[in-house]
Amino acid sequence: MEIAMSDTATAAPYQATDRTVPTRSRERASYDRELVHGLLDEAYVCHLGFVRDGAPVVLPTLFARVGERLYIHGSTGSRPLRAAGQADPGLAVCLTVTHVDGLVLAKSAFHHSINYRSVVVHGIAHEVTDPGEKRAALDALVDHVVPGRSLDSRPANAKELAATAVISLDLNEVSAKLRTGGPNDDPEDLALPHWSGVLPLTPGYGAPVPAEGLDPALPVPDYLSAL
Amino acid sequence: MEIAMSDTATAAPYQATDRTVPTRSRERASYDRELVHGLLDEAYVCHLGFVRDGAPVVLPTLFARVGERLYIHGSTGSRPLRAAGQADPGLAVCLTVTHVDGLVLAKSAFHHSINYRSVVVHGIAHEVTDPGEKRAALDALVDHVVPGRSLDSRPANAKELAATAVISLDLNEVSAKLRTGGPNDDPEDLALPHWSGVLPLTPGYGAPVPAEGLDPALPVPDYLSAL
Repeated sequence: MEIAMSDTATAAPYQATDRTVPTRSRERASYDRELVHGLLDEAYVCHLGFVRDGAPVVLPTLFARVGERLYIHGSTGSRPLRAAGQADPGLAVCLTVTHVDGLVLAKSAFHHSINYRSVVVHGIAHEVTDPGEKRAALDALVDHVVPGRSLDSRPANAKELAATAVISLDLNEVSAKLRTGGPNDDPEDLALPHWSGVLPLTPGYGAPVPAEGLDPALPVPDYLSAL
Repeated sequence: MEIAMSDTATAAPYQATDRTVPTRSRERASYDRELVHGLLDEAYVCHLGFVRDGAPVVLPTLFARVGERLYIHGSTGSRPLRAAGQADPGLAVCLTVTHVDGLVLAKSAFHHSINYRSVVVHGIAHEVTDPGEKRAALDALVDHVVPGRSLDSRPANAKELAATAVISLDLNEVSAKLRTGGPNDDPEDLALPHWSGVLPLTPGYGAPVPAEGLDPALPVPDYLSAL
């Protein structure tokens, strides 16, 4: 899995805050915009956290990035989206994305680990009410799943737009955290007779499965084969 | 990705509660223990949500299941683990696991989706203070990453045990949610000239990478090749 290039290679990093500086393994933290954008764009779902009745709730959901803003959509009846629309000044959220890259087997149980790349975004989510921004966000959500697909599907009609709520979350308080490489065994354990190293995880795609009843003359589109 | 078999095939399902009944797509919800156990066991990381200073925090972390109890470990200095140890009656958490199985391309932008299987656990996490349970939990955490590995690595010593905090979360308030199958297009869209169907995501493993300096005479263990 390669980190995708972004359009802000020369931008300043995100400003670290009290809650984006980890208490542990600080050397694994990064505030690099290009890195963060790539990790976000590579993920199909995020885990969105919010507080309901004083307790945390974490739900997986689709999202998309447009520049320095993330979008999440859902039914106008869904609880977090309703809350973001009603609350003033919005809904406090934490949006997290994680890629698991490998299993790290050390000589000692203690140093077993996982290679991963994650992004954590803290902020206040707001409902998107501008019709133009809402349409662009919905296109971005489709294109986040399959780049180029929004141009090859029927756009949302008025009824669908009315049934869909979109919330936005700006990328201000953001950090990435990465673990890469082999096990960090203690020197005195290196001679132990256990295999040690990394088992990489390799995500991939299967063959496209046409919808039931799809006209067999319709070819698999190039933007899908490209994945 | 197949759902692993569990040892509680005949057990009663989890009791649905107000917060484990989704407001949307209720037909996708399940409270089946066997299904939930399989989805948890298949995941390498969970996303753990908790509340800090009134705001949500969502962090990826390793976990393991032993029967109807989940374990999470971390440094005794990490914020959520410290909070679980200090707070009475514990730390309110939401632990979520998600498998992304496929990209669903519909004729309409509106019906694009993702095939997924997720589990959401609500509850109160407590620090594990019993030394025997703590050791067993640490073994389970290693074996969750690579089944059988805890017997083929140096167990934690007293210093490592003291540096590691383990918290537990019982499986009481639990639900799974699944989306499977092809796109749910509206009948009036079926003749549109867009390809529709599912692009499956196929996780896999790469070749094991030995640690730097590993004795080349040490073979890759069978429990690793079995993955």
